[in-house]
Amino acid sequence: MSLIVVGSMAFDAIETPFGKSDKIVGGAATYIAWCASNFTDVKQISVVGGDFPQEELNALAARNVSLEGVQIKKDEKSFFWSGRYHNDMNSRDTLVTELNVLGTFEPVVPESYQGSEFLMLGNLAPSVQLSVIKQLKQRPKFIAMDTMNFWMDIAMDDLKAVLKEVDILLVNDAEARQLSGEYSLVKAAHVIRNMGPKYLIIKKGEHGALLFQDNNVFFAPALPLEEVFDPTGAGDTFAAGFIAHIAKTKDVSFDNMKTAIIVGSAMASYCVEKFGTQRLREINKTDIEARLKEFVQLSSFDISLV
Amino acid sequence: MSLIVVGSMAFDAIETPFGKSDKIVGGAATYIAWCASNFTDVKQISVVGGDFPQEELNALAARNVSLEGVQIKKDEKSFFWSGRYHNDMNSRDTLVTELNVLGTFEPVVPESYQGSEFLMLGNLAPSVQLSVIKQLKQRPKFIAMDTMNFWMDIAMDDLKAVLKEVDILLVNDAEARQLSGEYSLVKAAHVIRNMGPKYLIIKKGEHGALLFQDNNVFFAPALPLEEVFDPTGAGDTFAAGFIAHIAKTKDVSFDNMKTAIIVGSAMASYCVEKFGTQRLREINKTDIEARLKEFVQLSSFDISLV
Repeated sequence: MSLIVVGSMAFDAIETPFGKSDKIVGGAATYIAWCASNFTDVKQISVVGGDFPQEELNALAARNVSLEGVQIKKDEKSFFWSGRYHNDMNSRDTLVTELNVLGTFEPVVPESYQGSEFLMLGNLAPSVQLSVIKQLKQRPKFIAMDTMNFWMDIAMDDLKAVLKEVDILLVNDAEARQLSGEYSLVKAAHVIRNMGPKYLIIKKGEHGALLFQDNNVFFAPALPLEEVFDPTGAGDTFAAGFIAHIAKTKDVSFDNMKTAIIVGSAMASYCVEKFGTQRLREINKTDIEARLKEFVQLSSFDISLV
Repeated sequence: MSLIVVGSMAFDAIETPFGKSDKIVGGAATYIAWCASNFTDVKQISVVGGDFPQEELNALAARNVSLEGVQIKKDEKSFFWSGRYHNDMNSRDTLVTELNVLGTFEPVVPESYQGSEFLMLGNLAPSVQLSVIKQLKQRPKFIAMDTMNFWMDIAMDDLKAVLKEVDILLVNDAEARQLSGEYSLVKAAHVIRNMGPKYLIIKKGEHGALLFQDNNVFFAPALPLEEVFDPTGAGDTFAAGFIAHIAKTKDVSFDNMKTAIIVGSAMASYCVEKFGTQRLREINKTDIEARLKEFVQLSSFDISLV
């Protein structure tokens, strides 16, 4: 039950209607590792600069996150992103993007990672994602991939090449529409699944998420929250909960994917409660079980009375 | 198990990206009657002009819809609305509104309607909705109310007066935000339930619907469709499926409301497949059962494996 995770480990500075964070630890792979390590061993592949806090690395190592694949470039700086969320929390402006170490990132898969059955490709340049797949001597049982509109704009050919190699793609609704050229998400799902991935998840933020396979569709609601404090990392956390449950159970049936997407939704609902990875650091198995039960309450019904 | 329905019976002319309808039969109470009559007797209260087709009235009567409370003003014209939907089908422009008979509508509750246990107040001037409640000698067991932003703009005091008298309000997300002054739908639900209704449904169109009561929340998904052909009447049909299931079962528990909201969602998913009430006229009990099973497939999951 071991999961390779590829993605950024970085610094973020976040402004929301509720406040402003200092420069805090962020990055897709950081969120994924904090979330996934509740369910499975994690083998991390990333790159950081000499400025990345050793305590953060120690904290992850203490959770069974292997850091052998994390390159530390002592004389360089970590990736930095700064953004400001609008009042609706669904849209944001990027204020600063400093690629730093990420600009020249060439991932190296350690020998000890070979043979892992599950792979999560966090949002990164498609060429970097593909490089990791190519380095694996044995194809993982199940490969999940995240991406974003930015790569559709500047690296569509590379993106299409990765899509042919993965089992499931996770994108949001706007990205699904851009990638497919279709407005209807049902039609978009047909088009995207013809590009390679057998499964597709379309994330709709506060409106939940859809899972598509053949003629099967599953809808996972988002938990209605009084306040979304900071949405940063929610998509990464969602993907992490999903793939980590699959890795834990080693079951890639559609029925188990339904459970996995609920796990992802539950973890994401915790993520947004505080700035950065803070809330993910606090929660334990009891919290996760309680939140999963809330999802059952939220969406179970009985049609036998109709 | 009899349900009083109050609302407009009218003509619509609809433009969507898929085409343009002639002047066809529409109106909230028309949609509600076509939908609800699958589940319960309907006692209709409305007003039409001499131009309203007798065949439509005959067709409804043949489905156990009592028309004793429908006033026919021979020398006047029926309410007419014309609108054009945008490409996303979530927003529309009103092209024409001719109130005609609706401008002076004074509902009269026939003696034979007295004693009905369930009441659906379709979207109409709040003063008209209140007049019906006041005419009922015995308060119905359960009163559902629809409204729209227009009445919040021009008749908020009247609207607040009706809210004090009803058990459940159905509004869309934008209307819930306008009525409450809160962006968060969870906070909006608190505020609105303090205005009177014990229960609240917030409709989110293609994103499903939320049901609130005390600390209980239930989320009903919308069926992901290849195409929404014509959204006109979907909200009325949803409300009708909801209240008609409650009327059929005479069970106002939260658990049964969950079932009822799924019934509403299933009926609305049929409504949008063709122009106007066309699809609602075609479907039968077998179709409804099949669609309900699709909702089970769409949203059932098992957390016992986590």
